[in-house]
Amino acid sequence: MVSGLAAGGVARIEENQMTNDEFRRYGHQVVDWMADYLENIRDYPVLPAMEPGDLVDRLPAEAPERGESMDTILEDFEQSIVPALTHWNHPRFLAYFAISGSPPGILGEMLTAALNVNGMLWKSCPALTELEQVTLSWLRQWMGLAQEFFGIIYDTASISSMHAIAAAREMADPEVRTRGNSGRLVMYTSEHAHSSIEKGAITLGIGQDNVRKIPVDESFRMRADVLRERMEADLRAGLKPFCVVATVGTTSTSSIDPVPAIADVAEEYGAWLHVDAAYGGAAAVVPELRGILDGVERAHSLVVNPHKWLFTPIDLSVFYTSRPDILRRAFSLVPEYLKTSEDSRAVNYMDYGVQLGRRFRALKLWFVMRNLGHEGICKIIRSHIAYAQKLANLIRSHPDFEVAAPTPFSLICFRYRGSDDDNRALLERINVSGKAFLSHTVLNGRFVIRLAIGNVATEWQDLEEVWELVKQTAGSGVVKE
Amino acid sequence: MVSGLAAGGVARIEENQMTNDEFRRYGHQVVDWMADYLENIRDYPVLPAMEPGDLVDRLPAEAPERGESMDTILEDFEQSIVPALTHWNHPRFLAYFAISGSPPGILGEMLTAALNVNGMLWKSCPALTELEQVTLSWLRQWMGLAQEFFGIIYDTASISSMHAIAAAREMADPEVRTRGNSGRLVMYTSEHAHSSIEKGAITLGIGQDNVRKIPVDESFRMRADVLRERMEADLRAGLKPFCVVATVGTTSTSSIDPVPAIADVAEEYGAWLHVDAAYGGAAAVVPELRGILDGVERAHSLVVNPHKWLFTPIDLSVFYTSRPDILRRAFSLVPEYLKTSEDSRAVNYMDYGVQLGRRFRALKLWFVMRNLGHEGICKIIRSHIAYAQKLANLIRSHPDFEVAAPTPFSLICFRYRGSDDDNRALLERINVSGKAFLSHTVLNGRFVIRLAIGNVATEWQDLEEVWELVKQTAGSGVVKE
Repeated sequence: MVSGLAAGGVARIEENQMTNDEFRRYGHQVVDWMADYLENIRDYPVLPAMEPGDLVDRLPAEAPERGESMDTILEDFEQSIVPALTHWNHPRFLAYFAISGSPPGILGEMLTAALNVNGMLWKSCPALTELEQVTLSWLRQWMGLAQEFFGIIYDTASISSMHAIAAAREMADPEVRTRGNSGRLVMYTSEHAHSSIEKGAITLGIGQDNVRKIPVDESFRMRADVLRERMEADLRAGLKPFCVVATVGTTSTSSIDPVPAIADVAEEYGAWLHVDAAYGGAAAVVPELRGILDGVERAHSLVVNPHKWLFTPIDLSVFYTSRPDILRRAFSLVPEYLKTSEDSRAVNYMDYGVQLGRRFRALKLWFVMRNLGHEGICKIIRSHIAYAQKLANLIRSHPDFEVAAPTPFSLICFRYRGSDDDNRALLERINVSGKAFLSHTVLNGRFVIRLAIGNVATEWQDLEEVWELVKQTAGSGVVKE
Repeated sequence: MVSGLAAGGVARIEENQMTNDEFRRYGHQVVDWMADYLENIRDYPVLPAMEPGDLVDRLPAEAPERGESMDTILEDFEQSIVPALTHWNHPRFLAYFAISGSPPGILGEMLTAALNVNGMLWKSCPALTELEQVTLSWLRQWMGLAQEFFGIIYDTASISSMHAIAAAREMADPEVRTRGNSGRLVMYTSEHAHSSIEKGAITLGIGQDNVRKIPVDESFRMRADVLRERMEADLRAGLKPFCVVATVGTTSTSSIDPVPAIADVAEEYGAWLHVDAAYGGAAAVVPELRGILDGVERAHSLVVNPHKWLFTPIDLSVFYTSRPDILRRAFSLVPEYLKTSEDSRAVNYMDYGVQLGRRFRALKLWFVMRNLGHEGICKIIRSHIAYAQKLANLIRSHPDFEVAAPTPFSLICFRYRGSDDDNRALLERINVSGKAFLSHTVLNGRFVIRLAIGNVATEWQDLEEVWELVKQTAGSGVVKE
C-alpha cells in the first residue's frame, strides 16, 4: 500500500522547513518574550477570566493544510494562549503546592528540548544516564540519605509512588510478575495521604477495598497505634499486609507522619515502607530541618519532587529506593532490539520502571543545583518557611480568622470565623480578583482555605498584599451576606 | 522543629538569584548554542566514544555548596556533557526509531519551560487543557479517525498502552477498581508486539502468564486465526479474554497487524481492542497511507506518538479512546483539595489517568502542526518512506546483502549474507565509527540490522554515505575474519 511513493518523494526534506537562521532569530525572540514575561509576571491576573470552552471556540476547528509562519503562531500564542493561562509563575499563585521553575532550570529545559535525547538505555544516551546518577547522588547527600539509596527520575510523584507499591508487591509475592495479583494483599496509608497512593493501588490491581486509610491525630498525623491494630487484624483474617505509605508533608495540611513509629510497625509485619515526601522532602536539604526525615533511613523507598519545591521546571520526580534489586526484578523486561553488551557499570534505567522513553530531565536539575548551590536553595526554602510562620502569626492574632492546622513547612491552612459558605465565598472572591490564587481543603468536616508558598519570586510584600486582600474581602460584606 | 527561623529568614529571596537581565543574556547564549548545534550536527560523532562511568568519574562527587555562575555551568555542559551524548538529532542516527524535534517544537518547549504550568485540572490551566483538546482534534482529523475518539496526551507509549489495558480491565470487570484483580483475565498480542504491552500487564497485576503471544505470518503480522483459537480455548478453560493489542508498525520490522480481522475476533469475544500505532500511526496523516489504519474505527483505543514521527520533541504520546467513559471510571479519583465547580464543558484531564501532574505538552505539538502544516508533515513522511524504499532496493540488488523483512514504512531490516557474528561485527564496527548509528533485532532466529529513517534533517546523501560505509566495512575484511 505504500508503493508508488519513490518517484515523487525524494525532494530535499529541508526545503519545507524553518532554516537555521530563522530558528536562531525566533529563538532569540522567544527568549525575549520569556524574560519579559518573568519580569512582568505581576501584571498578569493569576487566574484567567474565562469560561470553559472559550479557547476551544476561539481557535480554528481544523488544522492548517499549509504551514504558517512562526510570526503568526507566536502572535496567536500571545493573543489566545497567554490570556487563557493560569500563571503558576505568579508570586501570588498560592494554591495547591505553589511551584516554580527557576531561571537555570528553564535554561536546562531549553537544551533538553534541543538535544531531544531518549535515555532508555545507557547506550542511547550515556550523558543522560550518568548525569542522572550524579545529580541524584548529590541530592541524596543534601537530604542526608544513606548511600545505599539508588535514585531514578520519573515524571511525577504519582508514577514514583506507583512504582513503590509495585516494588512492595514484588517483595511480598515474587510470583506476582508472572501469575498476576493474588488478591490477598493489603496496604496502609493515612486518611490524609495523597490521592495518588489510592490511585496507584487501583492501577496496580490491588483495589481500593484493600487500601486501609488509617486515622490521624489532632495534628493530622497517621496514628501508628491504629496502624498496628489494622495490620494485626488483617493478618489474622488471612490477608497479607505488604505496604505502608507514610507522608512527610501531606497535601491538605503538610503534616508529617511519625515515620520512626510507623517504621517499627512496618518492620514488625515485614511490609515495604514508602515515604511520600514529594513536597516536604525538599525541606530536608536545609540542615536544621533534616529531622523531618527521621526514620526514613529505615524506609524501602522515598519520593521527593524537585519540580515542587526545588525550583526545577515540571516535570521531575525523584524516587529513591534501598532495594533497587526488587524494583528491577519487578520491571526489567529487555526485548531483543534493546539488548546491549555494556559492562555492569552501565545503568539501563528502562529496567527500573514502566516507561521506556525517558527525557533528559537531570540536566535542568544539574543547572538548578549548581547555579543556586546548596546555600542558595536553603536560603529560599528558609525564607518560604519564615514567611509562612510570620503570616500564620498575623492570621492567628486577627479576631476574625483562625489557623486551622499546624504550619511545619510553608503551607498555611486558615479560615474566616464564619460558616463554610462564608469561607467558600471569600475564596471565590479572592480568586476571581486575579490578584491571588488560593485553594481549599476540608479539615474535620470544615471548609478551610489553603495558602502555599513555594515560588522563587514570592516576596514578603506579596503576602502582605494577599493578607490585606483577604481581610478587606472578608470585611466588605462579601461574606456573611 | 521548624521554629526559630523567622528571625533570620526574611531576607529578600531575589538576592540569591539570577537577575532577569542575566536570564535574558544566558537565554540568548543558549539559543545561539542550540542553533549552532543543529547547524553543525553532522560534525559530531553519533555515538560517543566512552566507557560506562566515564562521566560519573569526571564530575564532582559532591554538589556545590555555593552557587556557581552560568558561564561555568554552560562551559561544563560543553566540555563534559556534550561529548557524552548520543546525538539523536544526527541525520545518520538510524537506530531504534529515529526521531527528531523540529525547530517549531523546540520553540514550543522553551515556552512550556518558562510558563511551568500544571494542567491537572481545567482550572489549574485552561490554556493547557483546551489546547490539548484542539490539537488532538486536529490530529484526529489528519489521521481520519472518527469524532467519537477522545484524546489525551500522556508522556510515553508505555503509559498510553498501560492505560488502554487498564480501561480494558475496567470494561471486563467493573468491580476491579474496588476489589482488585480477579485473576481470570487474559490478554492477547503478537509475539512481535512492543515490550511495553507485556510490561503494562506486569504493572497492572495481570501477570506475564496471562499475556498470550500470538504467532505471526511470514510478514511478521499477527495471525487472526490463531488469535481466535487461543481466545476460544481460554474461554472454554473458564478464563476471561479481556483485551487484544494489535500493532501498526511493530518495533522489529514495522509490520502491520491485520486490524480488521483482529477486530472481528475481539468483537466476537467482547474484548477491548487497543491498537499500538506509536510509530506507524503517524504515517496515517498522509492521505494515500490512511489505509494502514483500516479497522481502527472499530478499536476501543489507539496510541500514536508525535515524539516519534511527527517531529515533536520527546515526550508526547497521544492516546485516543472511543470509550472515555470507561477510562474515566477506571481512573477518576478527586480529593477534596482538587474539587472544582466548573460546568461540564471543563475537562479535568487528571480524571483520565494515573498522573496528576501534567506538563503543557500540547503547545509544542500546536507549534509543529501549524508551522509545518499538514502538507509539510506529509512531505517529510513521504520522503522518509521513499528514501527507505530506494535504499531497500539498493540493498536488495547487492549480492552480499539481503533485505530481511518487508518495508512498509521507513524502517529497513537487512543482513549481510554471512553469519550472525559477521553481522554483529559489522554493526559494531559501523557504530564505533561515529559516522552512523544502527540497531538490530532477531528475526526467525537470525541477527538482523535495523536502519530506521525518521529525522527531519536526514537527506538522501546521508543514506548514500551510510550505505557506502556498510558496504566498505563489510568488504574490508572486518567481518568474516
